[in-house]
Amino acid sequence: MSEVTATDLYEVTMALSYLREDMRAPATFGLFARALPPGRGFLVAAGLEPALDYLSRFRVSHTDVEEFAEVLRRPVEDLEPLRGLSFDGLVRAVPEGRLVFAGEPLMEVTASLPQAQLVETYLLSLLCHQTAVASKAARCVLAAGGRPLVDFSLRRTHGPEAGMQAARLCALVGFTGTSNVAAAHRYGIPAAGTMAHSYVETFFSEEQAFRAFARSHPGPVTFLVDTYDTGHGVATAARVFEDLGLGPGCGIRLDSGDLDALARRARTALDEAGLGAVRIIASGGLDEYGVDRLVRMGAPIDVFAVGTKVGTAADAPYLDTAYKLVQYDDRPVMKLSSAKVSAPGRKQVFRFAGLHDVIGLADEELPVGSEPLLRTVMRDGRRTGPHDSLTAARARFEADIANLPDEARSIEHPVPHRPAVSARLAALTASVRHRIEDRIREGEEP
Amino acid sequence: MSEVTATDLYEVTMALSYLREDMRAPATFGLFARALPPGRGFLVAAGLEPALDYLSRFRVSHTDVEEFAEVLRRPVEDLEPLRGLSFDGLVRAVPEGRLVFAGEPLMEVTASLPQAQLVETYLLSLLCHQTAVASKAARCVLAAGGRPLVDFSLRRTHGPEAGMQAARLCALVGFTGTSNVAAAHRYGIPAAGTMAHSYVETFFSEEQAFRAFARSHPGPVTFLVDTYDTGHGVATAARVFEDLGLGPGCGIRLDSGDLDALARRARTALDEAGLGAVRIIASGGLDEYGVDRLVRMGAPIDVFAVGTKVGTAADAPYLDTAYKLVQYDDRPVMKLSSAKVSAPGRKQVFRFAGLHDVIGLADEELPVGSEPLLRTVMRDGRRTGPHDSLTAARARFEADIANLPDEARSIEHPVPHRPAVSARLAALTASVRHRIEDRIREGEEP
Repeated sequence: MSEVTATDLYEVTMALSYLREDMRAPATFGLFARALPPGRGFLVAAGLEPALDYLSRFRVSHTDVEEFAEVLRRPVEDLEPLRGLSFDGLVRAVPEGRLVFAGEPLMEVTASLPQAQLVETYLLSLLCHQTAVASKAARCVLAAGGRPLVDFSLRRTHGPEAGMQAARLCALVGFTGTSNVAAAHRYGIPAAGTMAHSYVETFFSEEQAFRAFARSHPGPVTFLVDTYDTGHGVATAARVFEDLGLGPGCGIRLDSGDLDALARRARTALDEAGLGAVRIIASGGLDEYGVDRLVRMGAPIDVFAVGTKVGTAADAPYLDTAYKLVQYDDRPVMKLSSAKVSAPGRKQVFRFAGLHDVIGLADEELPVGSEPLLRTVMRDGRRTGPHDSLTAARARFEADIANLPDEARSIEHPVPHRPAVSARLAALTASVRHRIEDRIREGEEP
Repeated sequence: MSEVTATDLYEVTMALSYLREDMRAPATFGLFARALPPGRGFLVAAGLEPALDYLSRFRVSHTDVEEFAEVLRRPVEDLEPLRGLSFDGLVRAVPEGRLVFAGEPLMEVTASLPQAQLVETYLLSLLCHQTAVASKAARCVLAAGGRPLVDFSLRRTHGPEAGMQAARLCALVGFTGTSNVAAAHRYGIPAAGTMAHSYVETFFSEEQAFRAFARSHPGPVTFLVDTYDTGHGVATAARVFEDLGLGPGCGIRLDSGDLDALARRARTALDEAGLGAVRIIASGGLDEYGVDRLVRMGAPIDVFAVGTKVGTAADAPYLDTAYKLVQYDDRPVMKLSSAKVSAPGRKQVFRFAGLHDVIGLADEELPVGSEPLLRTVMRDGRRTGPHDSLTAARARFEADIANLPDEARSIEHPVPHRPAVSARLAALTASVRHRIEDRIREGEEP
């Protein structure tokens, strides 16, 4: 798959028309979430690093031009104006890991109109998905209240590549491990995982299975204890741990049933066997709701493994994001169609203490006591600084989450902050709206 | 990303242990959905073609071994037994496009235990996701009642690669086009798309925008009419169509608001202008529920473009699938842990008229009047036939969907068929269960 042709056809038809009409003036597009999905009190900005990689590499090759021509059923010559087009624009963006709210640009792209248009679809595909998953994972971190979380999502994500992103995004918000080997390697995340039920089933007894596993894997091991009967499995695991002199660093995993009750019984059994150092890992359909319930009940679970529902952001698998033209050739523009009104002009988000945000214009003076959320991350098509690290992103996330008001942190009924709008942005929005409405009313072209 | 290391760590630790214990006997794993999500009356088997490609290529390289060693923090020598391991097993599977129900194996893999285990995660990641999306897309086809559907999902899928799959799966169930250029090229699907609101906004008037677009794109064009005011936009589009002598093959697109009311007014305006041949395309947050409502209201919409909710299978973004060991070394096995009981043995699905299915054992005689759903698609690690085509898969889908009972077709309240279980499978399940329970009751190892 070419990153250039992995785009909506209309980006190509528009770009071609712009080139033909010689409309190459700078255009600014803002990428933002119109609203937060139910069940979300905040979003975690994510996907910027891959997006900048994409923009850095973006260049329409001859093969791309041939592909465009083929699907448009037009001669290759017609598409030639696109050939060699690369991205040499300006990108201002919210760094990964920061919390954002509805209407706040995650990214503003300013470039020659055909360029800024052509990159729309791919940028949306990266940022929309990754912000959705990071936001879901962040809620698991809140629910776990300091207990470690591990990502087990790869088998249920929307393909293996989405699984790679899920592992990265979980690490970004503070997960301590992933089951995904390739992601552990690529992103330097500790890898986690031991055995499946099938492993136990291939041996004639659980005990044989546990002993064989310990033989193959010197050092601490984790046994899956619920293949047949959990109480029995825990007793067997305890016996094998004792026999082999194992304990610290070892664990048992519960993957089904009433995790609270099973964890309590397992904890008692392990403690009675003098295995207080053996940890209990719980998995099986968990997300922030399940983790929150178990933590509030006081279940003696040491590590939560979450997978499917987090890797697919199951209760909110997409964000209602838009990539809206806000300025063209120094003229602020906006759309008026019902329910999708967009605010014109290049923007900045001013963040005050307690994550109280004001969306204003990029050229407004920074209000006292606020910091700007959007930073210049690419100029003339080149990154303005080194690659961002997962560690730095995690630090930003941790700083923001520590300041998040209680109502937005709620797992069951989160109430997201609604950013205010600066006086200057409100005035600009009203004036552009009136200009368009007047023209429609007078029967002129809008 | 290496396809081999894009796996859960436990596949590696298990495979390593099997090799060490010399457990290389043939194992059969069955991949199936435990239950259908709410809102689904059937599933469309999908993902087999990419899965067979993956299995054909599967081979643990030296680099993969190094990656395994790194994440396990063990010497490379410890992982050497995995090197060179490839897949030379047998695969029986339901061909893409066929309808399936809960508990029916989409695929059964029989191979030497370490091989069959190592491929689990990646196979699940392909089949779970693709079957979920194909099933959602199929419901849109039912809702559209013969009107054409186009895939617009790329910008909101879980990354661009998931967008490629979404386009393919939509085409598999009969969509007539996709906005995704790379997918149109790769899979030979007609590409669709024209202009965004931003295009209209960059011009000083809608009319200028429409005229410029027609200049750049000779032949039929589609104008997006709801950037400012839809009634006005339709009138402008009609004027431009008339001026340029356009009509057949042209269209207008509505992307927001009350699509039924707007389509009716647009149809009247176009017809009054003698533009009966101009089609109306509707988009904007549609899935089978929105399409069904518009069709039932009789909205004069000629083409539905669906995106986000279909490409992410938004109301059921994952399937509760499992890859369960059902037989090892000729011994049928099963898991007993609560709520996740699996049936033992190699299976076959016998399909009777009206999609009445019986799940039985692979070696049962074919019941009179039934056909077997699972076919041998790979033997000794090689495909048993040529690559399947999207056209053939679509034909299978169309044949099955034509026979789907009404209650499973329902958009609002689908009731899925529950396959029966053959007498022999029921007997085997009971006997394996009793064998395990007896051993637990007697205090022996299960």
